[in-house]
Amino acid sequence: MTYCLAMRLTDGLVFLSDTRTNAGVDNIGTYRKLQVIRPSDDRVFVLQSAGSLATTHEVLARIDRDLTSSGDHESLATASHLFEAALYLGRLNKQVTAEHIATVGSGATATFILGGQISGERPDILLVYPEGNYIRASDTIPFLQIGETKYGKYLLELAVRTHVGLESAAKIALGSMLSTAHANLSVGPPYDLGIYRNGALDVREMRIEADHPYLAELTRVWVDNLIEGIQELPPIPDDVLAELS
Amino acid sequence: MTYCLAMRLTDGLVFLSDTRTNAGVDNIGTYRKLQVIRPSDDRVFVLQSAGSLATTHEVLARIDRDLTSSGDHESLATASHLFEAALYLGRLNKQVTAEHIATVGSGATATFILGGQISGERPDILLVYPEGNYIRASDTIPFLQIGETKYGKYLLELAVRTHVGLESAAKIALGSMLSTAHANLSVGPPYDLGIYRNGALDVREMRIEADHPYLAELTRVWVDNLIEGIQELPPIPDDVLAELS
Repeated sequence: MTYCLAMRLTDGLVFLSDTRTNAGVDNIGTYRKLQVIRPSDDRVFVLQSAGSLATTHEVLARIDRDLTSSGDHESLATASHLFEAALYLGRLNKQVTAEHIATVGSGATATFILGGQISGERPDILLVYPEGNYIRASDTIPFLQIGETKYGKYLLELAVRTHVGLESAAKIALGSMLSTAHANLSVGPPYDLGIYRNGALDVREMRIEADHPYLAELTRVWVDNLIEGIQELPPIPDDVLAELS
Repeated sequence: MTYCLAMRLTDGLVFLSDTRTNAGVDNIGTYRKLQVIRPSDDRVFVLQSAGSLATTHEVLARIDRDLTSSGDHESLATASHLFEAALYLGRLNKQVTAEHIATVGSGATATFILGGQISGERPDILLVYPEGNYIRASDTIPFLQIGETKYGKYLLELAVRTHVGLESAAKIALGSMLSTAHANLSVGPPYDLGIYRNGALDVREMRIEADHPYLAELTRVWVDNLIEGIQELPPIPDDVLAELS
């Protein structure tokens, strides 16, 4: 499995991906699932992937081939709008998936998050399905997740609802990731973080290794705060406690 | 779906169940999924259920029939140990499931948590599978969940690891439930809470309605604490931020 998340905030976008891959429990690998692609000065894309590793690898290879080979064909450089880039990615995904599904079965599907900005448009994040279609993040709850999405969802809602800044959002993203990795062995470090400030047309990208002291410090402060928060919860009122005692 | 959880703590046991049932999104119901059964003064059981409502109803009806009909047959009153009660429940579950599966298909399965105490034994919580077998909660992470287990798992781990008291554990259970219900429409109020103190051989049971002011207050304090906690998280260090900027 995998856990990738993307948030659209007032100031920009935040992306976070784990790197663990597994085929059963005895075939564990580490692969980058967050790619930054900058085909020209007027656009930048962040691609995150979940699902079949073989499918995502071939989709990424085709994206790269389309960008580097000469000729008059569609690529991430030719899309005029983010939704066109999402549909292009969706077509590649659908083609590769169809070829792999014939031999591998339904496990060959992959799902992508495509985020970024094309100059003149607002930055955005889109979810691209194995069927080739896409959705944008909603305006009410503007985040997207793929892979093991349940464990870390609550924190993301909190982040986008409270209109935090980019750095706070990145910390929340890490909190969401650490909770997920803690609960699910198929999600693990190192983690790839991407931060995009509106209009920058470039992504600040970093990798956080499992043994980076910051992760331990973040976990410690987070757990201490949670325990403190639990102690401050109001007592269960007598009328509830008395009801059936 | 459903969310039921049970925790085994130093001082006793805590149980919490939601009450929402659904068959698709246009057939929503409210049913009790936490039952307290006290066949005699030397024992008390808490039963929580997830899965097919028809299967759980018939299992509960058979448990009741075995307890109230005369004759020399097995029942929750005759089990000498909690594990025997779990195996008895497992047999009923397996029988009913087998009958329903023949017509309904795999959706007819149900899973139970059985907790409580038989005098002379330590209180415990056990998970009973549709196949009729069971597991105890582990000694390291002594809680069990059935239904929509992922959203609220992290909080429970925190609770059992930090050896909180029964009332704190109940608050944490409610926090875990509220996070789950917030994220997943198939889990919803009212909530049934059961608190068992070691040796009491009786369960303090209460129902918390959706509009009880305590739930709103609990959520408010919890969210405020989380937001405060987020603000206190240590800044992402420069060596991480600088890596690829």
